[in-house]
Amino acid sequence: MDFNTEMKERVTYIDEVIERYLPKEEGFEKTLLSAMNYSMLAGGKRIRPMLMLETYRLFGGEEENEIAPFLAAMEMIHTYSLVHDDLPAMDNDDYRRGRLTTHKVYGEAMGILAGDALLNYSFEVAARAFTGTIDIFRVARAFTVLTQKPGIRGMIGGQAVDVENCDQPIDKDKLDFIYQLKTGALIECSMMIGAILAGAEESKVDEIGEVGKKIGLAFQIQDDILDVIGKEQVIGKPINSDEKNHKTTYVTLFGLEEAKEMVKVLSLDALNMLENFPRKNKFMEEMVQYLIFRDK
Amino acid sequence: MDFNTEMKERVTYIDEVIERYLPKEEGFEKTLLSAMNYSMLAGGKRIRPMLMLETYRLFGGEEENEIAPFLAAMEMIHTYSLVHDDLPAMDNDDYRRGRLTTHKVYGEAMGILAGDALLNYSFEVAARAFTGTIDIFRVARAFTVLTQKPGIRGMIGGQAVDVENCDQPIDKDKLDFIYQLKTGALIECSMMIGAILAGAEESKVDEIGEVGKKIGLAFQIQDDILDVIGKEQVIGKPINSDEKNHKTTYVTLFGLEEAKEMVKVLSLDALNMLENFPRKNKFMEEMVQYLIFRDK
Repeated sequence: MDFNTEMKERVTYIDEVIERYLPKEEGFEKTLLSAMNYSMLAGGKRIRPMLMLETYRLFGGEEENEIAPFLAAMEMIHTYSLVHDDLPAMDNDDYRRGRLTTHKVYGEAMGILAGDALLNYSFEVAARAFTGTIDIFRVARAFTVLTQKPGIRGMIGGQAVDVENCDQPIDKDKLDFIYQLKTGALIECSMMIGAILAGAEESKVDEIGEVGKKIGLAFQIQDDILDVIGKEQVIGKPINSDEKNHKTTYVTLFGLEEAKEMVKVLSLDALNMLENFPRKNKFMEEMVQYLIFRDK
Repeated sequence: MDFNTEMKERVTYIDEVIERYLPKEEGFEKTLLSAMNYSMLAGGKRIRPMLMLETYRLFGGEEENEIAPFLAAMEMIHTYSLVHDDLPAMDNDDYRRGRLTTHKVYGEAMGILAGDALLNYSFEVAARAFTGTIDIFRVARAFTVLTQKPGIRGMIGGQAVDVENCDQPIDKDKLDFIYQLKTGALIECSMMIGAILAGAEESKVDEIGEVGKKIGLAFQIQDDILDVIGKEQVIGKPINSDEKNHKTTYVTLFGLEEAKEMVKVLSLDALNMLENFPRKNKFMEEMVQYLIFRDK
């Protein structure tokens, strides 16, 4: 099977897992539940749960059904962050992936509540693993990581710094901070949890977390690159025009070529580190390359 | 020591516990952390952690320091709900407890993020109990309740139905649903967790949950009563004037006298149920009476 076919099949599997945990749209609170499901079913690459599952396999995990609550929880956390990110007080986006954003369909109040509900529900879903067959100490450790990485010293922290600095130039330190937390933390989180649930020892969990950080950073720099290349192709804007609205990116700081070089270095680092783990996971390696060198 | 003095001392203790878990305001994400702490330190009766602690004592719990993460987490969940409730798209309140609301001080985007951060951080803080001395199965059970009761079939569910129906008359079924979830669920949650962490058996946990529901409902009906009485005293509005803006309350549905009677019946029920537990907790009984029959 070629990579693209395999990728599609796995997205379908992750989608099935996610749907298993979505709330039934019934009861007085039906609108809230519909808004949650609307945002969860907007499509998406399902990168985070997929990386979690592949890392779990990389470390020899075999009870795939048992880690399902964490797969679904991870995507819920990612989705809540998008729902709140799109709100009028934040990025004020009307569309995401070609569909109206949640608050455009359900109203702003329900958009806020649907995001809150997804964040809360993600932990509720993950907590079901406490009554599964995976060792409870492992589940507790995975749970702890699930509460930390999306939090104040993780994703939300990065998001807050991004919001505060969106209208002014920033230096590399702050940009790295934003990228590593806003984008990197959930990828790091997914891979760490996959390793923990498979029973990896602590040093290996930390190592795979480092791999996740590199993938996350490379992924985000590639986003900067595609933003510039896409604009050039579509509306003929010159490279680095982002500087005009003070949005600092790796491309505005270092130029397109150096940014591309950084993506290469980071991804090679990540792949080399993956090579050092006892098992191989060929699909995962291909996936990392696909994520980093994607053209859209 | 009289009740009021004892109450003050205990609020001081709970405040100390909460402050122990607040994030240090440092790093690039300092503004976010300041906004969280601003909302947490706005004062408040600390009813939920206090009920949790007293229930823990009622069931003979003796490691008070070990349940501290859950006490702090409970108040964080309550506080995040207030921060989001005050947002322009929700109740649009500029003041709470005589201070500017979080989004008025830090801006709307930071208000949304601070609420998200508090909700996420509450679970992060509670997860610290996994590495404490309380039996891990108890902690996992308490954690599960902590993720359920504030969620879609609990507080957020009630909040969503309230938001959807704020401009139209509703019947008793829906009003009960809103009250039991929006207000009742966190009180129920607090008491259940106190019992679980003390090692209470499942049937007792359910029973104390029922007590919590009754206290929550009585508390909310008393709010309706005080709203009417307060308005009469302050601006001379006639009783039941809430009907004009279609805000349904127990007073608009049943009248003031019957609402008062309901509060009495619910609180007597709650106190009778408390009587049936093996241990006594005199302070807790006084506290329940104080909460329900308060005049402000």
